[in-house]
Amino acid sequence: MRIITIGREFGSGGRELGKRLADELSMNYYDKEILTAIADKLQMDENYIGKKADGGLLHAIPLSFGRTFAYRQQDTVRILVEQQKIIREIAEKGEDFVIVGRNADVILKQYHPFRLFVYADMESKLCRCKERGEGNESWTDEELAKRIRQVDKGRAKNRELLSGSMWGRKESYDLCVNTSGVLVKEIVPVVADYANVIFRRTR
Amino acid sequence: MRIITIGREFGSGGRELGKRLADELSMNYYDKEILTAIADKLQMDENYIGKKADGGLLHAIPLSFGRTFAYRQQDTVRILVEQQKIIREIAEKGEDFVIVGRNADVILKQYHPFRLFVYADMESKLCRCKERGEGNESWTDEELAKRIRQVDKGRAKNRELLSGSMWGRKESYDLCVNTSGVLVKEIVPVVADYANVIFRRTR
Repeated sequence: MRIITIGREFGSGGRELGKRLADELSMNYYDKEILTAIADKLQMDENYIGKKADGGLLHAIPLSFGRTFAYRQQDTVRILVEQQKIIREIAEKGEDFVIVGRNADVILKQYHPFRLFVYADMESKLCRCKERGEGNESWTDEELAKRIRQVDKGRAKNRELLSGSMWGRKESYDLCVNTSGVLVKEIVPVVADYANVIFRRTR
Repeated sequence: MRIITIGREFGSGGRELGKRLADELSMNYYDKEILTAIADKLQMDENYIGKKADGGLLHAIPLSFGRTFAYRQQDTVRILVEQQKIIREIAEKGEDFVIVGRNADVILKQYHPFRLFVYADMESKLCRCKERGEGNESWTDEELAKRIRQVDKGRAKNRELLSGSMWGRKESYDLCVNTSGVLVKEIVPVVADYANVIFRRTR
Protein backbone atom coordinates (compact mmCIF):
# COMPACT_ATOMS: atom_id res chain seq x y z
CA MET A 1 0.00 0.00 0.00
CA ARG A 2 1.31 3.44 -0.99
CA ILE A 3 0.32 6.48 1.07
CA ILE A 4 1.41 10.07 0.49
CA THR A 5 0.76 12.58 3.26
CA ILE A 6 1.04 16.27 2.47
CA GLY A 7 1.62 18.96 5.06
CA ARG A 8 1.51 22.46 3.65
CA GLU A 9 1.55 26.13 4.46
CA PHE A 10 -1.65 27.94 3.58
CA GLY A 11 -1.34 29.30 0.03
CA SER A 12 1.66 27.16 -0.92
CA GLY A 13 -0.24 25.06 -3.46
CA GLY A 14 -0.06 21.89 -1.35
CA ARG A 15 -3.61 20.84 -2.06
CA GLU A 16 -3.16 21.32 -5.81
CA LEU A 17 0.03 19.26 -5.64
CA GLY A 18 -1.82 16.55 -3.69
CA LYS A 19 -4.66 16.31 -6.21
CA ARG A 20 -2.29 16.23 -9.16
CA LEU A 21 -0.03 13.63 -7.52
CA ALA A 22 -3.06 11.43 -6.90
CA ASP A 23 -3.96 11.70 -10.60
CA GLU A 24 -0.38 11.11 -11.76
CA LEU A 25 0.05 8.03 -9.57
CA SER A 26 -3.53 6.72 -9.86
CA MET A 27 -4.12 6.97 -6.14
CA ASN A 28 -7.25 8.02 -4.29
CA TYR A 29 -7.37 11.52 -2.86
CA TYR A 30 -8.79 12.49 0.53
CA ASP A 31 -9.34 15.97 1.85
CA LYS A 32 -12.75 17.54 2.48
CA GLU A 33 -14.53 14.15 2.28
CA ILE A 34 -13.17 13.59 5.76
CA LEU A 35 -14.91 16.68 7.08
CA THR A 36 -18.22 15.47 5.64
CA ALA A 37 -17.76 12.13 7.36
CA ILE A 38 -17.03 13.80 10.69
CA ALA A 39 -20.00 16.15 10.27
CA ASP A 40 -22.29 13.16 9.68
CA LYS A 41 -20.94 11.30 12.67
CA LEU A 42 -20.98 14.16 15.17
CA GLN A 43 -24.00 16.01 13.75
CA MET A 44 -22.06 19.26 13.53
CA ASP A 45 -21.73 21.94 10.89
CA GLU A 46 -19.10 21.03 8.28
CA ASN A 47 -17.61 24.54 8.14
CA TYR A 48 -17.23 24.61 11.89
CA ILE A 49 -15.51 21.22 11.76
CA GLY A 50 -13.18 22.46 9.01
CA LYS A 51 -12.05 25.23 11.28
CA LYS A 52 -11.41 22.91 14.20
CA ALA A 53 -10.00 19.92 12.34
CA ASP A 54 -7.22 21.59 10.43
CA GLY A 55 -6.31 24.73 12.27
CA GLY A 56 -8.95 26.93 10.78
CA LEU A 57 -10.23 28.05 7.42
CA LEU A 58 -9.28 31.46 6.16
CA HIS A 59 -12.68 32.90 7.11
CA ALA A 60 -13.32 32.85 10.81
CA ILE A 61 -16.57 31.02 11.52
CA PRO A 62 -18.71 33.07 13.91
CA LEU A 63 -19.38 31.17 17.08
CA SER A 64 -23.08 31.23 17.64
CA PHE A 65 -25.26 30.15 20.56
CA GLY A 66 -22.94 31.79 23.08
CA ARG A 67 -20.93 28.59 23.52
CA THR A 68 -18.32 28.83 26.20
CA PHE A 69 -14.59 28.42 25.66
CA ALA A 70 -14.57 25.08 27.48
CA TYR A 71 -17.26 23.80 25.13
CA ARG A 72 -15.27 24.86 22.10
CA GLN A 73 -12.13 23.15 23.40
CA GLN A 74 -14.16 20.02 23.96
CA ASP A 75 -15.43 20.21 20.39
CA THR A 76 -11.87 20.43 19.05
CA VAL A 77 -10.84 17.32 20.92
CA ARG A 78 -13.96 15.37 19.83
CA ILE A 79 -13.42 16.40 16.21
CA LEU A 80 -9.72 15.52 16.22
CA VAL A 81 -10.42 12.13 17.77
CA GLU A 82 -13.14 11.39 15.22
CA GLN A 83 -10.85 12.54 12.42
CA GLN A 84 -8.12 10.16 13.56
CA LYS A 85 -10.59 7.30 13.56
CA ILE A 86 -11.78 8.07 10.04
CA ILE A 87 -8.23 8.42 8.67
CA ARG A 88 -7.28 5.06 10.21
CA GLU A 89 -10.37 3.46 8.69
CA ILE A 90 -9.36 4.75 5.25
CA ALA A 91 -5.89 3.21 5.66
CA GLU A 92 -7.36 -0.10 6.83
CA LYS A 93 -9.12 -0.44 3.48
CA GLY A 94 -5.66 -1.05 2.05
CA GLU A 95 -5.95 1.21 -1.00
CA ASP A 96 -3.29 3.66 -2.23
CA PHE A 97 -4.09 7.25 -1.38
CA VAL A 98 -2.92 10.84 -1.02
CA ILE A 99 -4.13 12.79 1.99
CA VAL A 100 -3.66 16.50 2.57
CA GLY A 101 -3.23 17.99 6.06
CA ARG A 102 -4.96 16.61 9.16
CA ASN A 103 -1.64 15.40 10.63
CA ALA A 104 -2.11 12.23 8.64
CA ASP A 105 1.67 11.65 8.63
CA VAL A 106 1.56 11.25 12.42
CA ILE A 107 -1.68 9.26 12.49
CA LEU A 108 -0.52 6.84 9.75
CA LYS A 109 3.09 6.51 10.89
CA GLN A 110 2.89 2.71 11.10
CA TYR A 111 2.18 2.54 7.34
CA HIS A 112 5.41 4.44 6.47
CA PRO A 113 3.81 7.03 4.24
CA PHE A 114 5.85 9.25 1.95
CA ARG A 115 5.72 12.48 3.95
CA LEU A 116 5.79 15.63 1.88
CA PHE A 117 5.78 19.23 3.12
CA VAL A 118 5.00 22.13 0.80
CA TYR A 119 5.96 25.73 1.62
CA ALA A 120 6.60 29.07 -0.05
CA ASP A 121 7.57 32.63 0.71
CA MET A 122 4.81 35.04 1.73
CA GLU A 123 4.84 36.93 -1.58
CA SER A 124 4.14 33.73 -3.45
CA LYS A 125 1.45 32.63 -0.97
CA LEU A 126 -0.32 35.98 -1.20
CA CYS A 127 -0.29 35.68 -4.97
CA ARG A 128 -1.79 32.16 -4.91
CA CYS A 129 -4.45 33.15 -2.37
CA LYS A 130 -5.54 36.11 -4.48
CA GLU A 131 -5.73 33.96 -7.61
CA ARG A 132 -7.95 31.52 -5.74
CA GLY A 133 -10.12 34.33 -4.42
CA GLU A 134 -9.37 33.49 -0.78
CA GLY A 135 -10.31 35.96 1.91
CA ASN A 136 -12.13 39.19 1.38
CA GLU A 137 -11.50 41.39 -1.64
CA SER A 138 -11.28 44.47 0.57
CA TRP A 139 -8.35 43.05 2.55
CA THR A 140 -4.92 44.59 2.17
CA ASP A 141 -1.93 42.31 1.57
CA GLU A 142 -1.03 42.80 5.20
CA GLU A 143 -4.42 41.62 6.39
CA LEU A 144 -4.32 38.60 4.09
CA ALA A 145 -0.78 37.73 5.27
CA LYS A 146 -2.00 37.93 8.86
CA ARG A 147 -4.80 35.46 8.09
CA ILE A 148 -2.40 33.10 6.34
CA ARG A 149 -0.18 33.08 9.42
CA GLN A 150 -3.21 32.50 11.63
CA VAL A 151 -4.28 29.43 9.67
CA ASP A 152 -0.79 27.91 9.87
CA LYS A 153 -0.61 28.70 13.57
CA GLY A 154 -3.80 26.72 14.05
CA ARG A 155 -2.31 23.79 12.13
CA ALA A 156 0.80 23.87 14.27
CA LYS A 157 -1.33 23.91 17.42
CA ASN A 158 -3.39 20.90 16.34
CA ARG A 159 -0.24 18.96 15.62
CA GLU A 160 1.06 19.81 19.06
CA LEU A 161 -2.16 18.46 20.57
CA LEU A 162 -1.64 15.22 18.68
CA SER A 163 2.07 14.50 18.85
CA GLY A 164 5.46 15.68 20.00
CA SER A 165 6.69 16.36 16.46
CA MET A 166 6.65 19.92 15.17
CA TRP A 167 4.48 21.03 12.26
CA GLY A 168 6.55 22.32 9.36
CA ARG A 169 9.95 21.28 10.75
CA LYS A 170 11.83 19.51 7.97
CA GLU A 171 12.86 16.69 10.32
CA SER A 172 9.24 15.49 10.35
CA TYR A 173 9.13 14.96 6.56
CA ASP A 174 10.84 12.99 3.77
CA LEU A 175 10.86 15.85 1.27
CA CYS A 176 10.19 19.58 1.64
CA VAL A 177 9.31 21.47 -1.50
CA ASN A 178 9.50 25.26 -1.87
CA THR A 179 6.91 26.38 -4.41
CA SER A 180 7.98 30.05 -4.54
CA GLY A 181 8.17 31.03 -8.21
CA VAL A 182 7.26 27.50 -9.27
CA LEU A 183 4.18 26.28 -11.12
CA VAL A 184 2.87 23.31 -9.15
CA LYS A 185 1.93 21.33 -12.25
CA GLU A 186 5.54 21.46 -13.47
CA ILE A 187 6.92 19.68 -10.41
CA VAL A 188 4.23 16.98 -10.23
CA PRO A 189 6.06 14.38 -12.38
CA VAL A 190 9.38 14.74 -10.49
CA VAL A 191 7.76 14.63 -7.06
CA ALA A 192 5.82 11.55 -8.20
CA ASP A 193 9.10 9.94 -9.32
CA TYR A 194 10.67 10.80 -5.97
CA ALA A 195 7.74 9.17 -4.16
CA ASN A 196 8.18 6.04 -6.28
CA VAL A 197 11.87 5.80 -5.34
CA ILE A 198 10.90 5.94 -1.67
CA PHE A 199 8.09 3.40 -2.13
CA ARG A 200 10.47 0.98 -3.83
CA ARG A 201 12.71 0.94 -0.76
CA THR A 202 11.94 -1.44 2.03
CA ARG A 203 10.73 0.95 4.64
CA MET B 1 24.55 29.03 -16.42
CA ARG B 2 23.25 26.34 -14.06
CA ILE B 3 24.49 26.31 -10.47
CA ILE B 4 23.48 23.86 -7.75
CA THR B 5 24.39 24.73 -4.16
CA ILE B 6 24.17 22.02 -1.52
CA GLY B 7 23.85 22.69 2.18
CA ARG B 8 24.00 19.56 4.29
CA GLU B 9 24.13 18.17 7.78
CA PHE B 10 27.32 16.32 8.58
CA GLY B 11 26.83 12.64 7.76
CA SER B 12 23.71 13.14 5.65
CA GLY B 13 25.37 12.14 2.38
CA GLY B 14 25.22 15.68 0.94
CA ARG B 15 28.69 15.54 -0.55
CA GLU B 16 28.01 12.19 -2.22
CA LEU B 17 24.77 13.59 -3.62
CA GLY B 18 26.66 16.65 -4.90
CA LYS B 19 29.31 14.59 -6.69
CA ARG B 20 26.75 12.28 -8.25
CA LEU B 21 24.52 15.17 -9.34
CA ALA B 22 27.51 16.82 -11.02
CA ASP B 23 28.18 13.56 -12.92
CA GLU B 24 24.53 13.06 -13.81
CA LEU B 25 24.13 16.62 -15.12
CA SER B 26 27.64 16.99 -16.60
CA MET B 27 28.47 19.90 -14.36
CA ASN B 28 31.75 20.74 -12.65
CA TYR B 29 32.08 19.96 -8.96
CA TYR B 30 33.73 22.18 -6.36
CA ASP B 31 34.48 21.31 -2.78
CA LYS B 32 37.97 20.83 -1.36
CA GLU B 33 39.61 22.51 -4.37
CA ILE B 34 38.46 25.75 -2.83
CA LEU B 35 40.40 25.05 0.37
CA THR B 36 43.56 24.43 -1.64
CA ALA B 37 43.12 27.74 -3.43
CA ILE B 38 42.66 29.59 -0.13
CA ALA B 39 45.68 27.83 1.38
CA ASP B 40 47.80 28.93 -1.58
CA LYS B 41 46.58 32.49 -1.37
CA LEU B 42 46.88 32.96 2.39
CA GLN B 43 49.86 30.66 2.94
CA MET B 44 48.04 28.72 5.62
CA ASP B 45 47.61 25.04 6.42
CA GLU B 46 44.78 23.48 4.39
CA ASN B 47 43.41 21.45 7.31
CA TYR B 48 43.27 24.54 9.48
CA ILE B 49 41.42 26.36 6.71
CA GLY B 50 38.99 23.48 6.34
CA LYS B 51 38.07 23.86 9.97
CA LYS B 52 37.54 27.59 9.70
CA ALA B 53 35.94 27.76 6.28
CA ASP B 54 33.09 25.35 6.76
CA GLY B 55 32.42 25.16 10.45
CA GLY B 56 35.00 22.57 11.31
CA LEU B 57 36.12 19.13 10.25
CA LEU B 58 35.17 16.19 12.42
CA HIS B 59 38.65 16.08 13.95
CA ALA B 60 39.52 19.18 15.91
CA ILE B 61 42.77 20.67 14.62
CA PRO B 62 45.08 21.44 17.54
CA LEU B 63 45.83 25.13 17.69
CA SER B 64 49.57 25.45 17.88
CA PHE B 65 51.84 28.42 18.52
CA GLY B 66 49.70 29.64 21.42
CA ARG B 67 47.73 31.88 19.11
CA THR B 68 45.28 34.05 20.94
CA PHE B 69 41.52 33.96 20.48
CA ALA B 70 41.54 37.35 18.71
CA TYR B 71 44.06 36.02 16.18
CA ARG B 72 41.94 32.98 15.50
CA GLN B 73 38.83 35.12 14.98
CA GLN B 74 40.81 37.25 12.57
CA ASP B 75 41.87 34.12 10.67
CA THR B 76 38.25 32.99 10.32
CA VAL B 77 37.23 36.32 8.86
CA ARG B 78 40.20 36.40 6.43
CA ILE B 79 39.49 32.84 5.31
CA LEU B 80 35.76 33.45 4.82
CA VAL B 81 36.44 36.63 2.83
CA GLU B 82 38.97 34.81 0.63
CA GLN B 83 36.55 31.93 0.16
CA GLN B 84 33.81 34.30 -1.00
CA LYS B 85 36.17 35.82 -3.52
CA ILE B 86 37.18 32.43 -4.93
CA ILE B 87 33.57 31.24 -5.17
CA ARG B 88 32.59 34.42 -7.03
CA GLU B 89 35.53 33.93 -9.41
CA ILE B 90 34.34 30.40 -10.18
CA ALA B 91 30.86 31.71 -11.02
CA GLU B 92 32.28 34.48 -13.19
CA LYS B 93 33.81 31.85 -15.45
CA GLY B 94 30.23 31.13 -16.54
CA GLU B 95 30.43 27.32 -16.37
CA ASP B 96 27.77 25.02 -14.87
CA PHE B 97 28.75 23.69 -11.47
CA VAL B 98 27.73 22.03 -8.22
CA ILE B 99 29.19 23.40 -5.00
CA VAL B 100 28.89 21.82 -1.57
CA GLY B 101 28.74 23.89 1.62
CA ARG B 102 30.59 27.17 2.10
CA ASN B 103 27.34 29.18 2.13
CA ALA B 104 27.59 29.27 -1.63
CA ASP B 105 23.79 29.73 -1.89
CA VAL B 106 24.13 33.09 -0.12
CA ILE B 107 27.31 34.14 -1.94
CA LEU B 108 25.89 33.26 -5.38
CA LYS B 109 22.34 34.53 -4.79
CA GLN B 110 22.45 36.81 -7.85
CA TYR B 111 22.90 33.76 -10.12
CA HIS B 112 19.69 32.11 -8.83
CA PRO B 113 21.23 28.74 -8.03
CA PHE B 114 19.11 25.68 -7.33
CA ARG B 115 19.47 25.53 -3.54
CA LEU B 116 19.38 22.04 -2.08
CA PHE B 117 19.58 21.06 1.59
CA VAL B 118 20.32 17.48 2.66
CA TYR B 119 19.53 16.19 6.14
CA ALA B 120 18.91 12.96 8.01
CA ASP B 121 18.10 11.63 11.45
CA MET B 122 20.99 11.02 13.84
CA GLU B 123 20.82 7.22 13.55
CA SER B 124 21.30 7.45 9.83
CA LYS B 125 24.10 10.04 10.13
CA LEU B 126 25.96 7.91 12.66
CA CYS B 127 25.70 4.96 10.31
CA ARG B 128 27.07 6.94 7.34
CA CYS B 129 29.91 8.39 9.41
CA LYS B 130 30.96 4.94 10.61
CA GLU B 131 30.87 3.55 7.07
CA ARG B 132 33.13 6.40 5.95
CA GLY B 133 35.48 5.84 8.88
CA GLU B 134 34.91 9.34 10.27
CA GLY B 135 36.12 10.15 13.75
CA ASN B 136 37.97 7.84 16.04
CA GLU B 137 37.20 4.14 16.20
CA SER B 138 37.25 4.23 19.99
CA TRP B 139 34.42 6.78 20.09
CA THR B 140 31.02 5.72 21.37
CA ASP B 141 27.93 6.62 19.34
CA GLU B 142 27.26 9.37 21.84
CA GLU B 143 30.71 10.90 21.30
CA LEU B 144 30.35 10.69 17.52
CA ALA B 145 26.87 12.26 17.70
CA LYS B 146 28.31 15.09 19.77
CA ARG B 147 30.99 15.73 17.13
CA ILE B 148 28.40 15.69 14.35
CA ARG B 149 26.37 18.31 16.20
CA GLN B 150 29.53 20.38 16.76
CA VAL B 151 30.38 20.46 13.05
CA ASP B 152 26.86 21.58 12.13
CA LYS B 153 26.93 24.22 14.86
CA GLY B 154 30.09 25.62 13.27
CA ARG B 155 28.40 25.72 9.89
CA ALA B 156 25.41 27.56 11.32
CA LYS B 157 27.74 30.06 12.98
CA ASN B 158 29.63 30.78 9.76
CA ARG B 159 26.38 31.38 7.95
CA GLU B 160 25.32 33.81 10.64
CA LEU B 161 28.59 35.70 10.16
CA LEU B 162 27.85 35.95 6.44
CA SER B 163 24.12 36.64 6.18
CA GLY B 164 20.87 37.06 8.03
CA SER B 165 19.45 33.79 6.70
CA MET B 166 19.51 30.71 8.90
CA TRP B 167 21.53 27.60 8.07
CA GLY B 168 19.33 24.54 7.67
CA ARG B 169 16.00 26.39 7.80
CA LYS B 170 13.88 25.14 4.91
CA GLU B 171 12.89 28.69 3.94
CA SER B 172 16.48 29.25 2.72
CA TYR B 173 16.33 26.41 0.17
CA ASP B 174 14.36 25.27 -2.89
CA LEU B 175 14.29 21.60 -1.93
CA CYS B 176 15.11 19.78 1.32
CA VAL B 177 15.85 16.10 1.09
CA ASN B 178 15.75 13.68 4.03
CA THR B 179 18.23 10.85 3.39
CA SER B 180 17.27 8.73 6.42
CA GLY B 181 16.90 5.17 5.21
CA VAL B 182 17.62 6.22 1.63
CA LEU B 183 20.52 5.24 -0.63
CA VAL B 184 21.86 8.50 -2.04
CA LYS B 185 22.52 7.02 -5.48
CA GLU B 186 18.85 6.06 -5.82
CA ILE B 187 17.60 9.62 -5.49
CA VAL B 188 20.21 11.19 -7.80
CA PRO B 189 18.16 10.94 -11.04
CA VAL B 190 15.00 12.39 -9.49
CA VAL B 191 16.82 15.25 -7.76
CA ALA B 192 18.58 15.98 -11.07
CA ASP B 193 15.18 16.08 -12.81
CA TYR B 194 13.86 18.42 -10.15
CA ALA B 195 16.84 20.73 -10.68
CA ASN B 196 16.17 20.75 -14.41
CA VAL B 197 12.54 21.77 -13.86
CA ILE B 198 13.73 24.70 -11.77
CA PHE B 199 16.43 25.66 -14.30
CA ARG B 200 13.86 25.69 -17.09
CA ARG B 201 11.83 28.33 -15.26
CA THR B 202 12.66 31.98 -15.71
CA ARG B 203 14.05 32.78 -12.31
